[in-house]
Amino acid sequence: MKNIKLILQYDGTNYHGFQFQNDVISIQQVLQDAILKVFNKEIKVNGCSRTDAKVHAVKYCAGFEFDVNIPTSKIPEVLNKVLPADVRILSAHEMDASFHPRFSTKSKTYRYVINTSKTPSVFSKNYEWQIQKKLDITSMKKACKYIVGKHDFTSFMSAGSNVEDCVRNVYFLKIKKKKDNIVIYINADGYLYNMVRIIVGTLYDVGNGKYSPEEVKKIIEKKDRSYSGPTAPPQGLSLFDVIY
Amino acid sequence: MKNIKLILQYDGTNYHGFQFQNDVISIQQVLQDAILKVFNKEIKVNGCSRTDAKVHAVKYCAGFEFDVNIPTSKIPEVLNKVLPADVRILSAHEMDASFHPRFSTKSKTYRYVINTSKTPSVFSKNYEWQIQKKLDITSMKKACKYIVGKHDFTSFMSAGSNVEDCVRNVYFLKIKKKKDNIVIYINADGYLYNMVRIIVGTLYDVGNGKYSPEEVKKIIEKKDRSYSGPTAPPQGLSLFDVIY
Repeated sequence: MKNIKLILQYDGTNYHGFQFQNDVISIQQVLQDAILKVFNKEIKVNGCSRTDAKVHAVKYCAGFEFDVNIPTSKIPEVLNKVLPADVRILSAHEMDASFHPRFSTKSKTYRYVINTSKTPSVFSKNYEWQIQKKLDITSMKKACKYIVGKHDFTSFMSAGSNVEDCVRNVYFLKIKKKKDNIVIYINADGYLYNMVRIIVGTLYDVGNGKYSPEEVKKIIEKKDRSYSGPTAPPQGLSLFDVIY
Repeated sequence: MKNIKLILQYDGTNYHGFQFQNDVISIQQVLQDAILKVFNKEIKVNGCSRTDAKVHAVKYCAGFEFDVNIPTSKIPEVLNKVLPADVRILSAHEMDASFHPRFSTKSKTYRYVINTSKTPSVFSKNYEWQIQKKLDITSMKKACKYIVGKHDFTSFMSAGSNVEDCVRNVYFLKIKKKKDNIVIYINADGYLYNMVRIIVGTLYDVGNGKYSPEEVKKIIEKKDRSYSGPTAPPQGLSLFDVIY
């Protein structure tokens, strides 16, 4: 059985995340539907990450096991022909049997875009959080230092998840200013439910003067979601890279 | 009565064009709803152009007559607060009583984007026609010369319109290559129903080798829609400028 790794990109605007759910459309479903159409076989596609509704992927990794009857390099072309235009396979590779898109992951990088313009573009509303005010980036950068490292991130996890170990290792958390955009990149070995969006919401509160950078250290120590900032809206978030 | 001119921008993806229609959402309706909410008055908003469903506006001009009780310069701010994020007022000006957004127009410029990449971005699918093949731009540029000028454009008009005079003056028609994009700009004193999209579809047929540039001259002379190319899809089209 061939173990196929797919690298893909998707605009999450019209999807309820990667993971299959009844009654709503997911990326996993359109991939499985495309494979069924092309290879005439119902196959489960595994993903590297659940993503929330409206969240995008600049680089996503999925995989499936099947003895495809065409060269692996031709898989993107044949699947892209039947996939909707907002989901696109960039490449396909045959992997060792041990490879799994989710469990083989070393780290993942997410990108979050905050637009601070007073007149944000109508053409990017699905790809950024348009806050229409300035934030203090210097304070936000200071706050990042407290988040980087191995911590119990319970304060940055939404209810509704049943994980027991809330310790994650954030390898980097960077903030870049690009014109009116504040672009936040975070890389970690794993993420709790809504962790990136709550970190962004907390950095927003710091940039807005609600918390000092130092208070973020205390928020982590509390291990209590009620102390951290709001969950930033989904459309600003993209899975940016997956490292194996 | 103040005669107010609004310059606005909109992402047409989720709208059925500018003009009000029963049962579907239009830009005109959301503007009128916003004015009703802010000024507590039902007022008709006039537009410079109908646009088709999914067509965008980088610069659109609308207008309404009403004695607003705030400085004209404050209108964008108050309306933007209640408008959806895909419609945005950029400026407001008080005009002479004679000004009308549609009838005062000298010319309008439309932009059409064709993406030729074999792997077009999922993030721009709502803003371009993704054809996934190369076109012969040199031939397309030659064909443009036959379209520029004052002609009867009946061959470039969809059925369903009841205009009698089909003569329009195309002041310029330019093609620019920007990486994988072919960007077409057209400026004319007026447009027939679907005229820009049929001109683009015909240029596509020229670039694809179906017609020679010279045949475009004959297509115009036929004054018959069945001789011209397909109607290019709406999402690649934006109203780009309105000149008074």
